[in-house]
Amino acid sequence: MVFHVEYPRIIPERKPPGHQPAAPRYTLRWHDPVETMVSEYYGMQQADLGWKSQRQFFEQVQASFSHADGPAAHEVMRFTDEAGETNAVVVAYWLDATRHARWGLSADFPKWFAARERIEGGDVGYWKETIAVPYDRHETIYSAPNYRIGFARTPNSSIESMTTNGYFGAARDRIPVSAIDPLESPLRGSPPKTRTVESRRRRLRVSTPLNMTALRSGQYWVGAGVEQLGDYQENLQPKLMRGMNFLLDNKEETGTLALRVMTNLDADGKDRAETSVLAYFLSLDQLEDWSKSHVTHLDIYRHAIAMNRKFKDKREVVTWHEVFVMPEATSFEYVNCHPRTGVLPYFDLLEPLST
Amino acid sequence: MVFHVEYPRIIPERKPPGHQPAAPRYTLRWHDPVETMVSEYYGMQQADLGWKSQRQFFEQVQASFSHADGPAAHEVMRFTDEAGETNAVVVAYWLDATRHARWGLSADFPKWFAARERIEGGDVGYWKETIAVPYDRHETIYSAPNYRIGFARTPNSSIESMTTNGYFGAARDRIPVSAIDPLESPLRGSPPKTRTVESRRRRLRVSTPLNMTALRSGQYWVGAGVEQLGDYQENLQPKLMRGMNFLLDNKEETGTLALRVMTNLDADGKDRAETSVLAYFLSLDQLEDWSKSHVTHLDIYRHAIAMNRKFKDKREVVTWHEVFVMPEATSFEYVNCHPRTGVLPYFDLLEPLST
Repeated sequence: MVFHVEYPRIIPERKPPGHQPAAPRYTLRWHDPVETMVSEYYGMQQADLGWKSQRQFFEQVQASFSHADGPAAHEVMRFTDEAGETNAVVVAYWLDATRHARWGLSADFPKWFAARERIEGGDVGYWKETIAVPYDRHETIYSAPNYRIGFARTPNSSIESMTTNGYFGAARDRIPVSAIDPLESPLRGSPPKTRTVESRRRRLRVSTPLNMTALRSGQYWVGAGVEQLGDYQENLQPKLMRGMNFLLDNKEETGTLALRVMTNLDADGKDRAETSVLAYFLSLDQLEDWSKSHVTHLDIYRHAIAMNRKFKDKREVVTWHEVFVMPEATSFEYVNCHPRTGVLPYFDLLEPLST
Repeated sequence: MVFHVEYPRIIPERKPPGHQPAAPRYTLRWHDPVETMVSEYYGMQQADLGWKSQRQFFEQVQASFSHADGPAAHEVMRFTDEAGETNAVVVAYWLDATRHARWGLSADFPKWFAARERIEGGDVGYWKETIAVPYDRHETIYSAPNYRIGFARTPNSSIESMTTNGYFGAARDRIPVSAIDPLESPLRGSPPKTRTVESRRRRLRVSTPLNMTALRSGQYWVGAGVEQLGDYQENLQPKLMRGMNFLLDNKEETGTLALRVMTNLDADGKDRAETSVLAYFLSLDQLEDWSKSHVTHLDIYRHAIAMNRKFKDKREVVTWHEVFVMPEATSFEYVNCHPRTGVLPYFDLLEPLST
């Protein structure tokens, strides 16, 4: 079977009649029913976080995955944040919310993360961002069917050809619930103001609003030959960075809350030829506004399509993304982090009480 | 259209082959797609809460419903809790999570409820329990199609005849997602222990676990004639109270977390001939265990069926329930309440920070 969810449409699809995509694209499906999709990011943060500390963190997190209810897949990454601090990151994927919850209750790493000592880490911060959405609140796209990344690393899935792509609004059309829900932010018209919170020596949960949108958008060029590698480095990557910097420089206008450019790492902590952006937007429509109208996205989009058309199935650079439109949640937790970490600056905060 | 969600089954249904229900039963459907169902309970609590205070509370809450994003329906109730305190209760129903969130951000009552002064209410406590579930995590049943109560008060719905009833496991079978999810508690095997929390002069949110199950189960006998009224008062009601007291007296064994027997009120604060139980269970299977095996539930069940068979469409007592199997949430908030209020005694607590 190929599992998917569809609703009787009460909101028209964006797809133009008779649309044929300019380039082939693919999306992820599973062969068993999926109710909830959980991607959980764990971060360790320090201004001069060395490889030894990073490796210890990675090993600790990964050791705790050897558990009956551990994740179905995970990845190891690193990025430098807006405050200039280094962040070591593990993302773990579950397709079963009960297993995820059981792991959170009984595995070693969550206990260690929850311990009071974590707020006393000096200049070392820890954070956890859990994106848990019903299946009908996600979409994925891949430029090629041959590379498994993100949720596509989970078993019992396949990367399937599709035609819901190549027009503005396609990402929304691919989110099943968009057929019955405009997915507006309840904060539309009154976006949150940035403010500085006292976040050091504290454990803080953030109350994130309904329909906050998480994007993980990736690029993979391992093994690319001279021509395509050169094009990636000289053309696509700079265009991508211009786009990301535009969003970072225009957060309020674009609804961007946080954006990190992460690099996947090998076992020795060296950069792989593989990056991804993890970004949060106040709402899907703001992400769409940027994609459909701003020159920085049009440059990325047109270049990717042109290279696809030029190299066809010889294309050696894979691009992809996952989008999740979140329910209301209090699942982002920051422990002894600097005040510009993640979505700390924007929303109501809660302090877990030690029990 | 009649909207409903169905999944390809990977978990067998409980319905025996060829099953024909012993008595007709009904369930609620809507004529537009429904994504999220929100029932939100607001409580005011005091040992000797007089009608004047109750009325003021009811008026204040109801006034705030005159709002573009106000609820689709609401009800006014009262109960005495396990500590002997009186609780005035309003329940409000939304079928649109965005409207519910907007109302929460801009209406008067939520602002008043969130104000710091509420923790300084002397011996008066306030609480809010928000049950927000995707459509596929609910089920309803009514003994008759003619009385509109609970979610059935919302517009664009109809009470439809069904045959998924009259066997043990029918409630589970009616929950769409039970086809693909056993809906177990991640706390199975290690149920929470009751503990006393410092809850006065504080605002506390409770972190409720995945698959906690909310039941609202009601009885309506307005206008019943002498014979059926007598039977209700002498037979069904005492059996019902025996069942509820058994659950209250055996909380840990039965997975019961909280249980209130509420009475609907008229505009003058007088009891209507209409009651309902609002109860929370650690998991659906524990509620099922009691229903299928304990004499106190079998007594209720058999009597209700016998009266249905005796009076058929002349039956003047309506029984019904709504069940919601909840995602992980932090949506139950208690302000200056006594420590035995709701689910306060069981789970991790969070303190919202004033901003």
